[in-house]
This record gives sequence, C-alpha cells and structure tokens, in this order.
Amino acid sequence: MTTVDTAHVATSTALLTDQYELTMLAAALADGSAHRQCTFEVFARRLPHGRRYGIAAGAGRMLDALAEFRFREPELAIAEKFLDADAVNWLRDYEFRGDIDGYREGELYFPGSPIVSVRGSFAECVVLETLILSILNHDSAIASAAARMVSAASGRRMIEMGSRRTHELAAPASARAAYLAGFDATSNLEAVRRYGVPGAGTSAHAFTLLHSGSDGAHEAAAFRGQIEALGVGTTLLVDTFDITQGVATAIEVAGPELGGVRIDSGDLGVLARQVRDQLDALGATRTRIVVSGDLDEYAIAALRAEPVDAYGVGTSLVTGSGAPTAGMVYKLVEVEGVPVAKRSSHKESRGGTKRAVRLSRRTGTIVEEIVYPASGPAPETDEFEVRDLLTPMVRGGKIIDDRPSLRDSRELVARGLISLPWEGLKLSPGEPAIPTTFLQ
Amino acid sequence: MTTVDTAHVATSTALLTDQYELTMLAAALADGSAHRQCTFEVFARRLPHGRRYGIAAGAGRMLDALAEFRFREPELAIAEKFLDADAVNWLRDYEFRGDIDGYREGELYFPGSPIVSVRGSFAECVVLETLILSILNHDSAIASAAARMVSAASGRRMIEMGSRRTHELAAPASARAAYLAGFDATSNLEAVRRYGVPGAGTSAHAFTLLHSGSDGAHEAAAFRGQIEALGVGTTLLVDTFDITQGVATAIEVAGPELGGVRIDSGDLGVLARQVRDQLDALGATRTRIVVSGDLDEYAIAALRAEPVDAYGVGTSLVTGSGAPTAGMVYKLVEVEGVPVAKRSSHKESRGGTKRAVRLSRRTGTIVEEIVYPASGPAPETDEFEVRDLLTPMVRGGKIIDDRPSLRDSRELVARGLISLPWEGLKLSPGEPAIPTTFLQ
Repeated sequence: MTTVDTAHVATSTALLTDQYELTMLAAALADGSAHRQCTFEVFARRLPHGRRYGIAAGAGRMLDALAEFRFREPELAIAEKFLDADAVNWLRDYEFRGDIDGYREGELYFPGSPIVSVRGSFAECVVLETLILSILNHDSAIASAAARMVSAASGRRMIEMGSRRTHELAAPASARAAYLAGFDATSNLEAVRRYGVPGAGTSAHAFTLLHSGSDGAHEAAAFRGQIEALGVGTTLLVDTFDITQGVATAIEVAGPELGGVRIDSGDLGVLARQVRDQLDALGATRTRIVVSGDLDEYAIAALRAEPVDAYGVGTSLVTGSGAPTAGMVYKLVEVEGVPVAKRSSHKESRGGTKRAVRLSRRTGTIVEEIVYPASGPAPETDEFEVRDLLTPMVRGGKIIDDRPSLRDSRELVARGLISLPWEGLKLSPGEPAIPTTFLQ
Repeated sequence: MTTVDTAHVATSTALLTDQYELTMLAAALADGSAHRQCTFEVFARRLPHGRRYGIAAGAGRMLDALAEFRFREPELAIAEKFLDADAVNWLRDYEFRGDIDGYREGELYFPGSPIVSVRGSFAECVVLETLILSILNHDSAIASAAARMVSAASGRRMIEMGSRRTHELAAPASARAAYLAGFDATSNLEAVRRYGVPGAGTSAHAFTLLHSGSDGAHEAAAFRGQIEALGVGTTLLVDTFDITQGVATAIEVAGPELGGVRIDSGDLGVLARQVRDQLDALGATRTRIVVSGDLDEYAIAALRAEPVDAYGVGTSLVTGSGAPTAGMVYKLVEVEGVPVAKRSSHKESRGGTKRAVRLSRRTGTIVEEIVYPASGPAPETDEFEVRDLLTPMVRGGKIIDDRPSLRDSRELVARGLISLPWEGLKLSPGEPAIPTTFLQ
C-alpha cells in the first residue's frame, strides 16, 4: 500500500457516479445518439420548506472534482463488469471538452434558478450528473443553513464545530461552506489545511475530568494546566460540575484577564446572564462568553438579547438545520438546439438553455429574478439595475482561472444577505424572498 | 501533482480532528496528566425521536481510518501553527497503542449501549474522538434508517440510489451502510469498487429525452436503443411522458420478456396497479415493476399491498430519514481506574469502564440489555440466553484480524431484526424495543 499525503494527491472522481449514467452512455454510443449536442441544467424545484432563499455553494469543489474525472485502469475495471468494449474504450479517453456556466459560488438562488448549465455532447455531460449534484446539494444545504445562523447572530462570532456529526470527509466541506456563508472559524483541522479556513478550539469536559483522583475532581488543576500551556487568552469550559463554582475557579486561577469561558449545557440564556454578572463582579469584564450545545438559527436568535460573545454550532449546521440536502436536480433541457422536457406529473421542468438576471433597486435591494431563453435577448429595464447571474466556468473543457476565492465568495454571501428585502431575512417559514419570472 | 488510484492509496486521517483535541493534548502533556490511563466510551444518550432501535455501523471503516491516523510532515505543519514543540514532537511519533472493544458492526443498539470502548493513555485516546464519532454517527444513522426501510419492504428488492443527495464521499459510505442493513444493491460505483456492494442501474429520463427531434420525442427509439445495448432484461423508464403509452411502447419494442419498468413519479400505488394490469394483459406477466421517487419507510410500507417488485430509495436513505446523525458521543468515563462523569444539567453520563450483555428468550426474542461495570461479574440468569456484546477490536494498537465481513454484518442485522419483540418493528414513534438496565 502506497502512503501519500492527501493534500498533494489527485485521485480519480470518476466512480463517484451512478451506474445508470454509464449504461445510458453505452446505449447512446450504440445507437448513435451519444454525440448529440446537449444542455443539462442544475436547478432546485423548490427551496427547503419555508426557506426564503438559498446560497449556491460548491462550485469551487465541483471544478476541482471535474479536473480529476478520469477513467484509468482501476476505474475501467469496474466499468468493464457491465459495459461493452466500445463504451469502456470511450471512457478510457474521456475528458470533458464542453462548456459550463454557473452562478458564482456564494450567490443567492431561488426556485428554478439555473444554477449551473453544462453543455457538450450527451455522452460527455451525462456522466457528470451525480458528481456535480452531490457536491452542489451538500455544500448548498450547509451554506444555506449557515447563512440563516449568521444573520441570526447579528455579527457575533460564529464557530463551526459539527465535524463529529457528519461523515468524516463531509466535515471539511461543511466547514468550508459555513465559512463561505459567514462563520468566522472551524474546529476542523482538515478544513484549515485544505481550504485555509481559520481554526478555533476551546477545551473539553474530558480535560477537566482527567484531573480527577480517588478524592474527586480537581477543576482548578485542570484550569491551571490549560492556562499554563495555552496562555491566559484561552477559553475555559466551566460547566463540567457547577457553573458558578466553575466561573469562580476559572477567575481565581486565570485572573480577570481570562480570554473566555464556555457554557455547553443548560438554559444558555439564563446562564449567560448569570455568568456575565459573576464575571463582571470579579473584574473580568472583558472575558468573553462562548455558548454551545444544540444551537440552531432559532436558538441563536433567541439569545440575541443575552450577553453572549460567540456561538459554537455543531449538529444543526452540518445537517443543514432540517434540510440536509438542497434537492437540486440535473436535467437535460436541450438537444441539438431543441428544448426538451419531461411531462409526467409533479416533476415538470422547463426546456431550453437558459440565462438569468437579477433586478435590484438603486438602494441595492433585489426585487426579482428573470430566467430567459439563452437564444433570446436579455431583459431590459430602466427602472432597475440588472445583474447577469451566469458566469463562464469552463470553456472547451478548460477551467477558467478567474474563479472567486473562498473569501470572495464569503463577501458575495454577505452582500447577498444585505440585498434581500427585509422579509427575506425572517427565520419563520415563508415564500421565496423575491419572485422568479420565466420568460419563454 | 501526483496522480494515484484511490483504492490503493493510504492517506492520513489525522487531521479529521477538532483543534481542541490537540490543544488539550498539549495542555495534558505540559502538566503531566497526558499519560494517565483512561477509558473513553462511545454511546448514544437516546435514539432519534420515536425510534425503537439503532444499528451500530461503521466499525470496519473506523478501524481502517485508525490505521491511517498518523501525523507526517503535512499534518505536522498544521499542528505547528498552534501547538508547542513538545506536543508536535509527540504527534510525530503518534500511533495508537491501546485497546478497543466494540459492538460488532451490524449489532442492534439502544440508549446507553457502550458501543465502543477505547482504552489507553489520555493522550493517545483523546485525539481519536472526532474521527471515531464522525464515522460511527454517519454510518449508524444511515444503517438505522435503512433497516426500517428494509423491514417495511418485507423482502422485496431494495436499491440504494441516493448518492446525488449527499456529500460525494459520504455516498459510498451510505451505500455500504444500506447494504449492511439489508439493501440489495446500490447505484454508486465507488461503493461497488471499495466495498463490493452489488451495483444496479436502470435508465434516466435524459436518455428518453435525448431521442427527440424537432418533431417531438421518440420514446420507442430510446427504448429500442436501450434494449439493443443492454438486452431485454433491462428496466425501461416509462414515465417520461404518458405512463400508459410508455408501457405499451415498452412491450411493443421489447416484447413480453422485458425485465422491468420503472415508475419515478405520480401516485405510485395507483400507478403500480394500473401498470401491472396493463403488463399482464400484454402477456408481460414476469416484467418487474420498480418504483422510486421520494420513498421513505412509510411510503414503502404504504405500498405493501401493491404489485411492486423493487424499491429505489434515495434522499430519505442518505439523510437518515429525518435523523441524519446518530448523536453518539465519546466520553471519558475512567481515569487510572476511577470512574469519572460530568455532572452538569441534562448531560449526565455514567462513569466507569463498562461491558454489556443482551438477554433473550429461548425463542430468540430479546428482552433486555444489561450494562455493567467491567470490574464486576457478568450478570447471570438461568431464565434467559446471555450474549456478550463487546468484542475485542484492537489490542496493544494492533487491529484484530477476525472482524466481520460486510456480509457477516448484513446477516447480523437480519438476525437482529428477527430478534426484536414485535413492537420493536413498528414504524410509529415509540420507546426503545427493550429496556436497558445499568448495574453499578
């Protein structure tokens, strides 16, 4: 077994694919339809229940994964089990040579927004369905939930700490999506390495409990150990036993310059107030209060009036706060210039390659999204600012180099949230923040 | 950039870790407490809302990941950003040298079941928390949801096809967990490669739509292409336009020996009956009906009386059907032979290294789980069969070689479901199927 560092290894993403994509490819190669020029479009039929906007995330990871979508011998060995030789040979030479346009990573999206448009032969486009959707559905679900939490936190520090509640490799992607949506830091070290997300960490109950003997627990010894190793700016976890005693011990050991205390259980609002009063009375007026423990956007909002300095968010973030997947689909919308669409019940889609613009008032507030045929003219208006939403990502198989950095995308999310009409930021269930008009 | 096949690459898992584990390590090394002998225990305080049992899954992947938990230069470069030189040097030599016991992969679990017990120095155990929990929480959430779907399907074929609705690398792990829980096949090719899960695939709407011209769609041409390439045993997707017409066309093209038809939209129960009648009338009495489209365990159960031969399950499977994470925690329970436990509100845990047995009647029906101190005697009873639940997985850092294969675990799940009292298999919200007694 070769041992290689992940950060410098390119591994094939070609089998992150559903089998039917390859059987369809084989059938299309056999009957000659494989080379027809097609457009596939990624969109969400609806937002998760009651959500007012979504954040399109994952485009950066999608392009990285596309670059590694290659069938080499190990991948071909799997394909050979169910494909004919012609199809296997076609896969051997596979390389996407078409075009991709998409919403910038971090852009707002709404039902029907043509988030990604993939154009090329049927064969070269059809095999990318699962990979593209997996990445966009995951990252957009996390970023969309994270943005609501960030807006509920009203500028207070947000730390992502949900790694243990999601697949081990979904964890760094979740941390990236949360950062993109406005979180300040992550506990996940792989996200620090891969994506440069700022790292953060406090302390754990295990560290306090470790300082126990047959005569019971020595919380002061644990705090002393942590301060000596990590400095007085560290955050002490004060709720292992009794919180009031924990805070008293923390300041006794650290002095009033202690960086922070963390509360991870109980009624966080009541406790935050008590702890703030206690800290202030002890002269630790600048010691920050970090709260964590089953926080979601509603709990964060409910703590707005309390003296909380930072939130640590875990489970609800990495599970998309009730919507763990964004529900985007990848649909064939055009064949050789002719729009196509499924007609069976409840799952209609709109045929034809599309483009999209968003209209906003001069104040910056967005008012409408317009989706229109790529073959037709762009909508014009004097009343509103018009912004083009689809940007070129791939041309002739070549990934365009000027994609936004993670920080650019983070700024785009922040600007997007400011641009929403005020109802759009409400946490209660509602309609999409702006209407989308589909021109024929 | 080196290009290497994933299947033959060992990559470090050491940064799939939360930063605070390493800062605690540093503090414990500095104050001398790092070398205390500890037990950490993995358990779930409760099952997801209303669930009556859980399936412990992920142990096999956990042991694979443990073997690659090594800090080499790229991982150390991240650790150096926030750790002192002593801690970094300690990580450089890190290798887990302790013991791990755990519930066999595929075993039932209940609230408080000591699913994994990790023993060694504080330092060597504390750094594994996130990796172990990420894997067990993910895989157990999927397997637990999958088992309910399998039992609702009463022996009909189950195909996992949720890859596009979850992180691209969570997808093969989900397929593995579903297979373990009794699913028959997966659409995910990486799961076929990595874990030997049987692959499956039907057809897509895109393939039918591809066969369109300016005069409209040619469903018959699409069906003909698929049959010619994949044989008459293939499954045709009949709901792109009109289902009755689709079925008629399918049998016209394929003849009555057609393998199957798939319905992916509409009222599946009504449609399955109509399609069965139509197929039978056309002489296609052995053509199978595959249904898919937003199926969960309730929808599967609701289709029990209908002529459905196979279910394709996506979103609800990979999102744990409302419970996307199993909520397991990793808690320090013993230090140098002394039980320790957190005492703050709502999050009590029970101190001390534990073992567990499950009691069953001679008929095989389980009646109770007993969790008892590892230092004390095992419970005895003449009335019930007693089965030990914790098996050795790692001894002195060495992974024990006789772990169950995926097929062994699959059989264990099947036996576990049979062993539940009948109330335990009900889909409605309820209490855990058996009580757990905690002996002091």
